[in-house]
Amino acid sequence: MGTTMKAIMKHHLGPGAELREVPIPQIEPHEVLIQVKATSICGTDVHIYTWDAWAESRIKAPMVFGHEFSGVVVEVGRDVTGVKIGDHVSAETHVVCHQCLQCKTGQYHICQNTKILGVEFQGCFAEYVKMPAENIWKNPIDMPFEKASIQEPMGNAVHTVLAGPIAGKTVAVVGCGPIGIMAVAVAKASGATEVIAIDINDYRLDLARKVGATVTINSAQEDPVKRVMQVTEGTGVEVVCEMSGHPVAIRQAFEMLTNGGRMSILSLPTKPIELDITNQIVFKGVTVQGITGRKMYETWRQTSGLIHSGQVDVTPIITHTMPLENFKEGFDLMISGQCGKVVLLP
Amino acid sequence: MGTTMKAIMKHHLGPGAELREVPIPQIEPHEVLIQVKATSICGTDVHIYTWDAWAESRIKAPMVFGHEFSGVVVEVGRDVTGVKIGDHVSAETHVVCHQCLQCKTGQYHICQNTKILGVEFQGCFAEYVKMPAENIWKNPIDMPFEKASIQEPMGNAVHTVLAGPIAGKTVAVVGCGPIGIMAVAVAKASGATEVIAIDINDYRLDLARKVGATVTINSAQEDPVKRVMQVTEGTGVEVVCEMSGHPVAIRQAFEMLTNGGRMSILSLPTKPIELDITNQIVFKGVTVQGITGRKMYETWRQTSGLIHSGQVDVTPIITHTMPLENFKEGFDLMISGQCGKVVLLP
Amino acid sequence: MGTTMKAIMKHHLGPGAELREVPIPQIEPHEVLIQVKATSICGTDVHIYTWDAWAESRIKAPMVFGHEFSGVVVEVGRDVTGVKIGDHVSAETHVVCHQCLQCKTGQYHICQNTKILGVEFQGCFAEYVKMPAENIWKNPIDMPFEKASIQEPMGNAVHTVLAGPIAGKTVAVVGCGPIGIMAVAVAKASGATEVIAIDINDYRLDLARKVGATVTINSAQEDPVKRVMQVTEGTGVEVVCEMSGHPVAIRQAFEMLTNGGRMSILSLPTKPIELDITNQIVFKGVTVQGITGRKMYETWRQTSGLIHSGQVDVTPIITHTMPLENFKEGFDLMISGQCGKVVLLP
Amino acid sequence: MGTTMKAIMKHHLGPGAELREVPIPQIEPHEVLIQVKATSICGTDVHIYTWDAWAESRIKAPMVFGHEFSGVVVEVGRDVTGVKIGDHVSAETHVVCHQCLQCKTGQYHICQNTKILGVEFQGCFAEYVKMPAENIWKNPIDMPFEKASIQEPMGNAVHTVLAGPIAGKTVAVVGCGPIGIMAVAVAKASGATEVIAIDINDYRLDLARKVGATVTINSAQEDPVKRVMQVTEGTGVEVVCEMSGHPVAIRQAFEMLTNGGRMSILSLPTKPIELDITNQIVFKGVTVQGITGRKMYETWRQTSGLIHSGQVDVTPIITHTMPLENFKEGFDLMISGQCGKVVLLP
Repeated sequence: MGTTMKAIMKHHLGPGAELREVPIPQIEPHEVLIQVKATSICGTDVHIYTWDAWAESRIKAPMVFGHEFSGVVVEVGRDVTGVKIGDHVSAETHVVCHQCLQCKTGQYHICQNTKILGVEFQGCFAEYVKMPAENIWKNPIDMPFEKASIQEPMGNAVHTVLAGPIAGKTVAVVGCGPIGIMAVAVAKASGATEVIAIDINDYRLDLARKVGATVTINSAQEDPVKRVMQVTEGTGVEVVCEMSGHPVAIRQAFEMLTNGGRMSILSLPTKPIELDITNQIVFKGVTVQGITGRKMYETWRQTSGLIHSGQVDVTPIITHTMPLENFKEGFDLMISGQCGKVVLLP
Repeated sequence: MGTTMKAIMKHHLGPGAELREVPIPQIEPHEVLIQVKATSICGTDVHIYTWDAWAESRIKAPMVFGHEFSGVVVEVGRDVTGVKIGDHVSAETHVVCHQCLQCKTGQYHICQNTKILGVEFQGCFAEYVKMPAENIWKNPIDMPFEKASIQEPMGNAVHTVLAGPIAGKTVAVVGCGPIGIMAVAVAKASGATEVIAIDINDYRLDLARKVGATVTINSAQEDPVKRVMQVTEGTGVEVVCEMSGHPVAIRQAFEMLTNGGRMSILSLPTKPIELDITNQIVFKGVTVQGITGRKMYETWRQTSGLIHSGQVDVTPIITHTMPLENFKEGFDLMISGQCGKVVLLP
Repeated sequence: MGTTMKAIMKHHLGPGAELREVPIPQIEPHEVLIQVKATSICGTDVHIYTWDAWAESRIKAPMVFGHEFSGVVVEVGRDVTGVKIGDHVSAETHVVCHQCLQCKTGQYHICQNTKILGVEFQGCFAEYVKMPAENIWKNPIDMPFEKASIQEPMGNAVHTVLAGPIAGKTVAVVGCGPIGIMAVAVAKASGATEVIAIDINDYRLDLARKVGATVTINSAQEDPVKRVMQVTEGTGVEVVCEMSGHPVAIRQAFEMLTNGGRMSILSLPTKPIELDITNQIVFKGVTVQGITGRKMYETWRQTSGLIHSGQVDVTPIITHTMPLENFKEGFDLMISGQCGKVVLLP
Repeated sequence: MGTTMKAIMKHHLGPGAELREVPIPQIEPHEVLIQVKATSICGTDVHIYTWDAWAESRIKAPMVFGHEFSGVVVEVGRDVTGVKIGDHVSAETHVVCHQCLQCKTGQYHICQNTKILGVEFQGCFAEYVKMPAENIWKNPIDMPFEKASIQEPMGNAVHTVLAGPIAGKTVAVVGCGPIGIMAVAVAKASGATEVIAIDINDYRLDLARKVGATVTINSAQEDPVKRVMQVTEGTGVEVVCEMSGHPVAIRQAFEMLTNGGRMSILSLPTKPIELDITNQIVFKGVTVQGITGRKMYETWRQTSGLIHSGQVDVTPIITHTMPLENFKEGFDLMISGQCGKVVLLP
């Protein structure tokens, strides 16, 4: 191990990114250094790459970005217990404050002062990354690095789907980007009796079908509310996982939800959305849940267990694997929508 | 008992109401007839009286309206078990279908085919009212009729406040009409450590203070979000009971809620409202609950118990009592907002 | 349809049963008459057949017994709505009072005054059976009668397994009679990451493996606690479904449960059992749930959905099917333990 | 501040304790040193003092014991954030491992490797005590030290009572030692409609009445099950907080619980107890919860809030206050049972 490493950098305050040689991070006493073996591209990374309004408001450059990864521990700080050199690991990307009400009551995932890997501090699109030891999640030694890398986004899907009862229930996943597809797989593996996947991208609806969707609806081609009502014999679904962020899709999502249903929202609409609170929430006695991050570390345990036990097979979801150097191809794929999860190998 | 009775009728498709002599209802085998001893005026009745857009779309005339009451059973149908002549009773006002998914799974309060007393069928602003026996709630013989009458709206408050944990938590009640005031009393009686009452009506904020509010905020005079943040040392409240229905108040309600908080909405905004789902629901990990009616009959048991045990003293909330004939005075009071609950005595 | 039918009768207060010709039941206005197409043998029926102490204390003779069935509606009472002639149906076997606290709060399955089909009133080991219309569960027209018949016991398994979160968790099923085997299948279909089946009967452990057990333990041959600790790397399982009723197995079940775990007990130990409350319940922060019957009708919806969607395949669990007349062979099989579910066809 | 301090020591492996002069603890980088202002006597301390079988098996001597306290921070370690000199504080007495499954999923109170202040490491019956900073709970500056000291045991009561819904429910507290009395107060403050206190000690039943019991039963003088059934009109209570640890009382506790009820057990029976699982748990659909410690730190927030808001007035529960030197008088009182909480002032 030398003193520098290859890394994908947001090199300036504008579109694009560059592969650069940068110093390997120096760890603090409570941190560990990990050699990255696989790192996957998130929609957030695409925002940073294409430099949209959100990225402009939030990201400083130059900075290494990326936050989904797996790897092997190569160095541990002197105060670290419970993690050792050679461990196969991934990491929770939210570093929390331990001081706010939410941290004090065990709700770390909604810490008021979260800092995020690859957003507020140096990320993992690199040969090495450092993390506080408390954020480390140990992987089984026989879990392939590609699969281990996508536990972070799959944790979002698991957190959303399992935020309430799911076995024996009818479910719609609205928006089938990679996390939506994972949500389909998790709902199926968790006993949902209908898993209805809705999107406007046929490539991804195909993927959804492969991982367990019982019905797929291209909402650009047919009215998804009408179709859901047919499938559910006029009742609507009991659970919606909203992963589209689109105003029209969100309104449809509420309309397809039956009385007393659960609407779990992971998506991040870019602006405020008009909701008919009276008819779609109050009279229907609906519960709406905002979902962010992963429960630390209940969600990680569930996610790791679902993958490792074979209950969820993520193989079809990882559609592309390529060397770190080819990251531009990876981002182009993500932008095109003709992919599931894209994994980079440093 | 003759064959006719006095009743307040919505006599035409327009504003106002009239006291009329109408036939005493004839009961079916599964119904009971109740002599009304006290009947209270709901905000819904005011909508019917003043004839707003909602009333115009929903109410048929001529019809006796009113749905909150207590009384004594005077006749029982031949198939009725569990209710007998002389019982002191109130009634759940939602008559449900027993066939839809929600009824089949015990969620009667969100039945897809609910019919409501005084809205879809003849109401209780009268000397007698009939109800299906299954809707009857028996009152303790020593519960005064005035208090027994307001269990129905207090059930809304109880359903809202107790839709999640409340003891040891900080709570804001946004909108202090009669049900909001009841929510203040229920939250206080259930162990909330702060009960912050918010309205623009000082008369009702005074009432809220009397029944247990620890802080009252007139949101026409000061910024309620800022004040709530001061009271909670920058954290925000853990629970909001939204009972205002006002777009500005609802947005403030979300802003004053801490991460992971519960927003229980009983109000019925008259039109769709813009919500910042990303920042106010998703990133904060908030749960939004639509609350309608009363759980059958868990909410009734809680409500009856809270009143009968003295845990909640509704005496200060019943500000006016008057003969049924004086109903116009009662409606004027409700329209003015210078009252708590108004009870009519047939 | 004549006026008499074949039925298996508990003909006297002692062991055995006889096939007899008895009158077809006459329905009341709120009841329906069903032509039985399939009826399965429950452990309770075996107790009645072999005439153990429980049967002696509870059963009157002569009486038709049996309570698991599916069939077709052939007659409906004049007050019945929502069920019609020709419907394919099964039935919830607990007829409840609608008057006790539990019924009044929607917890019908723990009604204080339950009466049970084939125990307190005439059962379904017959060509026809009558039931109150409210107890009818409608089956999809394409669900085979054999599968539809075993929804009642499978409902017990579903109620037990889904009495708390299960996806992503490690589970042990202690006692693999037919309902235990169903519990294994339901846990697997609902996303459990380990499903450990424990019994002393290899035939049934084989069945458990076929429907999804990840580990099977013959507790007559090895220490199940030790093995569970190995499988879970010293932690213990997060959920135990106790279906053995055996004192030793129950104590082991507590020992193999991790801190904060859930112990859901469906079994009925024949006498009081010594529990180390301090070490096995309090210090471990364990939750113990008594499970009885099926939630009306949430459990039926889940069960029907899991079967009809294919999430749970009950085919391997129905090991024997035979004409009603051959019931003695069926009981012998059940007594031998060399079977899964035994279905009789009238 | 010198280098030594007064402390109550378990000076030998036998009954009794002595006041000694010992070194003031030296803190580690992650710890803080607190000047103890008030420290209260727990039942556990009485076991250590009288040297029963449990103490003999668990306690090493010589050691300072005691674990309930409040005080002022006088020194902080170099790695400590979030606590500063001058802060008024109490402390969670369970020091957890952060590595086991339970810690990893936020269930610190059931950590598999907990170490307890005053049991496994040096306690707070002294002028100074040191604790890891993460265990510190900050008190409002205006909370009297005596009240602040008893938050730890009151946390047990809060954890027990609020382990499920309580508002609008009927509750029995079985066993009215100091924590039982606190449970009565918490249940009352949280909206229970009946709070039935049961013990054999009239002094403590009197205290229970003062803090809100609606019914008190001396179970040495009358059958508590019969009386509870009368009070609840034959139904039984919906919640039992079991705090006696006595076999007879525990069996009565199950008998007085209604179907579907919650049995929350905080007590530590000294040996295994026979339970009628079939009739008292399964058929009744009861939930039994083992309760240990306090949720970190949700329970602390609830407890602190209930005291500071005035919802629970603990004044009547602190019956005796005395200088640390008079500890023998304090222990004698605790042994006699003629007291509530006894607070020592160093």
